Parts: sequence; structure tokens; C-alpha cells
Amino acid sequence: MNIIDIIVKTKRKEKLSREEITWMIDSYVEGIIPDYQISAWLMAVCFNSLSEEETFYLTEAMRDSGDKLDLSGVDGVTVDKHSTGGIGDKTSLIIAPVCAACGLRVPKMSGRGLGFTGGTIDKLESIEGFRVNVDFEDYINIINKNGAAIIAQSGHLVPADKKLYALRDVTGTVDSIPLICSSIMSKKLATGADCILLDVKTGSGAFMKTAEDAQKLAELMVKVGKSCNKKCCAVITDMNEPLGNAVGNSLEVIEACEILSGRQKDRLYDLCMILSANMLELGGFGNYDSCLEMAKEKIENGQALEKLADMIEAQGGNRNTVYDSSLFAQPQYSLEIKSDSDGFISQINSEEIGMSALMTGAGRKSKEDTIDFTAGIVLNRHVGDAVKKGDVLMTLYSSTVTDLSFAGERALNAVCIQSEKVTVGNVLINTIK
Amino acid sequence: MNIIDIIVKTKRKEKLSREEITWMIDSYVEGIIPDYQISAWLMAVCFNSLSEEETFYLTEAMRDSGDKLDLSGVDGVTVDKHSTGGIGDKTSLIIAPVCAACGLRVPKMSGRGLGFTGGTIDKLESIEGFRVNVDFEDYINIINKNGAAIIAQSGHLVPADKKLYALRDVTGTVDSIPLICSSIMSKKLATGADCILLDVKTGSGAFMKTAEDAQKLAELMVKVGKSCNKKCCAVITDMNEPLGNAVGNSLEVIEACEILSGRQKDRLYDLCMILSANMLELGGFGNYDSCLEMAKEKIENGQALEKLADMIEAQGGNRNTVYDSSLFAQPQYSLEIKSDSDGFISQINSEEIGMSALMTGAGRKSKEDTIDFTAGIVLNRHVGDAVKKGDVLMTLYSSTVTDLSFAGERALNAVCIQSEKVTVGNVLINTIK
Repeated sequence: MNIIDIIVKTKRKEKLSREEITWMIDSYVEGIIPDYQISAWLMAVCFNSLSEEETFYLTEAMRDSGDKLDLSGVDGVTVDKHSTGGIGDKTSLIIAPVCAACGLRVPKMSGRGLGFTGGTIDKLESIEGFRVNVDFEDYINIINKNGAAIIAQSGHLVPADKKLYALRDVTGTVDSIPLICSSIMSKKLATGADCILLDVKTGSGAFMKTAEDAQKLAELMVKVGKSCNKKCCAVITDMNEPLGNAVGNSLEVIEACEILSGRQKDRLYDLCMILSANMLELGGFGNYDSCLEMAKEKIENGQALEKLADMIEAQGGNRNTVYDSSLFAQPQYSLEIKSDSDGFISQINSEEIGMSALMTGAGRKSKEDTIDFTAGIVLNRHVGDAVKKGDVLMTLYSSTVTDLSFAGERALNAVCIQSEKVTVGNVLINTIK
Repeated sequence: MNIIDIIVKTKRKEKLSREEITWMIDSYVEGIIPDYQISAWLMAVCFNSLSEEETFYLTEAMRDSGDKLDLSGVDGVTVDKHSTGGIGDKTSLIIAPVCAACGLRVPKMSGRGLGFTGGTIDKLESIEGFRVNVDFEDYINIINKNGAAIIAQSGHLVPADKKLYALRDVTGTVDSIPLICSSIMSKKLATGADCILLDVKTGSGAFMKTAEDAQKLAELMVKVGKSCNKKCCAVITDMNEPLGNAVGNSLEVIEACEILSGRQKDRLYDLCMILSANMLELGGFGNYDSCLEMAKEKIENGQALEKLADMIEAQGGNRNTVYDSSLFAQPQYSLEIKSDSDGFISQINSEEIGMSALMTGAGRKSKEDTIDFTAGIVLNRHVGDAVKKGDVLMTLYSSTVTDLSFAGERALNAVCIQSEKVTVGNVLINTIK
């Protein structure tokens, strides 16, 4: 086989065979095929896409490029969740304890953040003593005992995705639906859960800007999951602003506890209930409506919050953290950002809010940077809200950046205020089973 | 500036500025931008093409990436010619002496062959003693004395094209009209002639398979040449079989002498007269018809052949070579290939003939290979000819390959014979001024 022939086939929209795709991915991971040939192929894929079959072959080849986890030691049905990501997305911290409290097994391997995207692992590390590096045996034991564990990715999982993603990132070839699908699904398949829920975000703050593209990606991922004998479901959810109020590491854990305690009932709560209900349904806990009831009940009776306390304790943290936010390190500096006009909020640009949070110290500009866990932004207002000049729109926090005015200016510019009232749709746009 | 932004712009069919293109090419040549980003950009260009302005900017940036020759020391108007290439294309060896005999200055820098394509420089080196490496001062002196010189490319000319071409070759990104245009024109502009004639081949044996693509490429190259203040003209010529009878180094020089002596009057002769007339017209030697007359006269009166003798002598070879083909090294082995059916020749696949010639030893498989100058193929029949079973279609020659049967089988398979008579069109399809 010859990589030039493969590039030219995709360029001419001719179908590649399973053997060709597997050979290409294996040879790339082994370093036999250089980056400059794969990047040309990736660009051809961006223009001509791949067929469903080609996407299956690519996903399988990527999944098989490294180690695969065997979760057969877990006692019960395992359900994993993946979100296509968004600023302020702390849903994993909420749905894992909710579902575990219902008896589902939730094994979650998560990543760290880079740039303006926050990683679940970074958020958990804002809890003093919390261990994210857990060996595989302990991981299985914690899941069997508590129902859920969230740990850092380890081992040699899907090296093909690591190499391909790094290359796509620097060659303008990120936004291809089959490439996004194979990247997400290869990792989810390698981490071994029985069922997979996919949360595909759409809107101005999402990677998929249109509902049509989100629908295509969701359908393709569900097909790929099913072709690999996984129970699979996708929800398409709205993302026209940051998710919830908090952006930043300890700030987001504190917000997750607010949701789990039942004190915060907003779009983030609605979304977490929808995600939990779908996961429970996938896991065979009943129909959607009864699963939704069950999830809500676990919030109301305090068992979901208790479950997060169990998870924190099992991984070395203080279980009281979930009841007492003063146990987190406290930010040293803060700045309130006030509206400079009257009207209605029509949009809050998530990426810009993410960049502002990065400027407060909440993220990493490069892999080597350390994070200020106390830093970030808490939004007081959301899309659709009426505001008056002088109203506090949000508060910025930091322990490392004394002058928050630059970050504040950027955050203020991220908020669009217009004179007409804005209608806000449901957080759930569609479900694909 | 940022290469990812540039890649994404081209991917979205947004126009790049002169500054962006110049920065990209300069940074690539300096090694600041890696191959894998440029190959992604090249693939995006294959899909979305470039505008005329972008092609001008790219050509200029490539031209300016290295040294540029100053031919102001040449006394008279200089005209260069470029052909998009084809098996058996020895037109440079014919038109240079014809035009020089008319008083035109023809400075030609040529390349070596690799794979099945033959290089003019390799052909000339089949003449004993012929020096292709001539320093710049001598080059100018020979042109001033004899009107023409053909030497090997030297110095640091258009390094951007060397790098880009090597990358395109291994990433499936060769067949893009603006990329082909900028590759050809950047070299022609850097080598400094006042006027440029472009011979764009079309047909089964040409790089441009369709007349439409050939027309587009020709028009674009003429526009780019004119925008750089060069007199420029293009002809589109038919290439549905190898050009002339001979494929191979000394065999092609011998055929060039046959044409120059007036003994061979065929499509190759017609093409050389058309090319010469266009070059002379570009150089201000009269209208096309009078230039065509002048070129033919130089063949008939022996001055063109005499001029080639002068050129060979000036570069260290024996001038009598043009009159006596026994002065070339003679092939040790030969094999006649006979027709296995009756009918009419409908096509002779040039690439396959080129591959057969390579198998006789006439070319290089890798840069380090040495050439058997005596090796190659002489065709007895051409497209449109009637043939009977047993007729000799061609003869293979070699001094290094004793068993020519494998090469012969491949060459025979390159000839399509059908029962109906085939009509053959004119060699000249169009002229773009």
C-alpha cells in the first residue's frame, strides 16, 4: 500500500478500504508515514468527507492503536458520557454522583484543560488532597464500592488520536465531522464502558455552530458506537453562552455542589437531569420519564450530594468539601463587572469569557503552566435577562492577578446587550437513539 | 501572521494578501513553517484553487526566494521557451539553433531527468565532451557569440519551487493549475529572458489531459508573465503519443539533427517550426507568417544545423557530431518489437513508453543512477498509421540491459491497435497571446 494513492483516492472522493485505513493509521503511529502526508489527507477529508464505512474503519483503527481498558471487573452496567465541550461545562461532576446514587456504574477518565477550555481533572484537583492518578485496580474497586470514579487518563490509550489531534490543531483541519467523530469515539470505545451518552453542543459557544452539523455528528457517533456493539445515545443541547454561572476550577466544583444540593435550579440543572435520565435509560433503569424522576429524587433527598462526598473521600479529599465551600482556597482579589447600558442580554460569547478566565489565571496558556484554582468568573446574568446600566453582570476572581481590569474589559465585551427582549429556547434540542 | 489562519482562509476560499503569501513562502524556505502545514495548504489549493492575484503573488514570492539572473549583458532580445513536458520532447535542441540562426538570443537553462521523463541536459551529455556546467560569464559570452546556449541549472535559483515541488510530489497535490503555473513561471522569471514562449501539451500523454485545462493553464501563465512585464505567448499542442520517433538520450540528439538537416518532415518538425515562429515573433522579427518562413529557410539552407554545431563546439563537444551519428557511442543490444495484430494505431501511451525506455537504461530510477546514453526506443509507427501483424512497430536499444524482452513487452502493451481508421488532428490546437 502507498500513502500517495490513499491521499489521491480521498481527494477524488473514491472509497478507502478497511485495510488501507488500518495500514495508514498504524504506519502513522509507528512513524513510517510522515506528518506532511497525513495533513494533506486530513485536508482532503475536510473537503470530501468520509463515508460511514470509512469513518467506522478509521475509528476502529484509532481505537486499536494502543491499549484498551477491560471493565469486566466492574459489577453492573457501566455508562460513560462525552460532551463536545464548552466553557463552564461541569456536568460530569454532577451526573456521575446522580447516576451512581441511582445504582449505575460511571467510570470516567477525563483530561486536563489547555487554553480557554477547562478540564474536569483540573477542577477536581482544586479539592485539597484529591488524587486523580489512580491505578487501574483501585479504579475498579472505587467504582464497585461507590458507583463512580473520575480519574486522569493514563496508559497508552489511543495514541493515534493524540498524534492526529495535535496535527489537525495546527493544520486547519479540526472541523470535519468524520474526523471529530473518530476522535471522540475511538477514545470512548478504548475506555471500555458498556453504554455511551454523547452530549453534542450547538450554538455560538459550541464547536458545532449549526443544529444541522450537530445532528450529523450526533447521528454518525451513535451509528459508530452501535456498529461496535455499544449501547449509544446522543443529545443535542443548546450552548449560546457559558454553561451555568461559574467558569474556573474551584468555582465550578462549588457550583456543582449547589446543583447537587438542590439549591440551584436553572438551565444547568435541567441539562444535568436530562443527561442523567438518558444515562440511566441506557443502563436499563427504566423509561426516560421514570429515569428523570429518579435523578431528580436523588437531588431532593440529598443522596447525590452524599455520593459526591463519597467519591471525594475515596480519592483522598475531605468529604465535607461538598457541604462547606470555605474548605476551598479563597481568592485574594476580585472585581465586579457592571453593565454599561440598559437592555436585554442577547449573547454571551463563551470563547471570550473563556479567554477572560484564562487571564485571571484559571487556565494554562502552555502545558507547563500552573493553574490558580481560585481564579475565574461567576456570571450573575444570562442570555434573555433584562439588565440596567450599573447592574453587576459578573465577578472576576484571582489569587495571582492583582489587576483584573484587562480580563474584566474582555469579559464585558463578551456580553451583547440589545434593546429588544430575547427569547431563549429549551436546553434540549434533540435526542438521537 | 499565522500559517493556520492562512490555511483556513484558503480552505474557506477567502483571498490571501500579497503580504500573507510572501510571508508564507519566505518562512517555508527558511524552515520556520514545517512541511505538514504547507501540505495542508497545498491540498486546500487543489480544492479551492487560487485567484489570479493570489497566483501572481505566489509566483513573485517564489521567484524572489533565491537568486535571479541578470541577462542585461546579452546583446539583443532574449527569448526562453518552456514545455510542460512529454516523452521524446527534444524541441529545445532544435528550436534553439533555428532561432539563433535567425539572430534571436536563446538563453536556456535546463534540467536533468528523473523517472521516465528525459532531461535536455542528459541528452546533451550524450555528446562526448559537451560541458553543461558553464559559469555565468561564459554563458553570456557564448550567447553573444553563437546566439544560444543550453546549460545546466546552477546557483540558488527558486529554492521555494524545489521545496514545494518535492512536497507536492509526495502529497498528491501536483495537479493544481495555479500551483503548476507558479512553479513554471517562477523559474522562467528568475532565469531572466525578455520574452517567454510556453508550450502547453494536452492529450493522453500530457499532464493536462483536457484541452480546457490546458487552455486555463496557458492563459494564466501568459497573464502572470505579462504582469511581470515579460512578453509572453503560449501554444497548446497535441500530445497523444511520444513526440517524434526517438526516446532516449543520444537517440534524441540524433533525431534533432535529422530535423535540423531537413531530412525529417513530420509532426515534430511542424511543432518545432511553430515554436520557432512564435519565439521569433515574440523577439520582434516580424509577423508570425514571415517568422515561420524564416525558420523553415534556416533548415533548408543548413544554417540551423550549422548553428547546433557551433553550440556544441562552444561547449566542448565535436561539431562534426551533428553530421555523423557514428561519433556517438553505439548501443550494444537491440530488439525489434512487432505488431501482433492488423489495424490502425489509436494511441501510444507515452508514460508506458517512458517506463519502457527507463527499463532499457535510458533514465534514472533515483537521483544517484547513471544513464546509459545509448539506450532507448525508436518508434517506426505513429498514431493513425495502418499496421499489419508482424510489422516492426519500434526498436529498443541498450548497452547495459542484455535482455530487452521485459521492456519490449511493456512497450508493445503501450500501443493500442483498433480496426477502424483513426483521424489525427493538427499538432497546434491554439495560440494564446
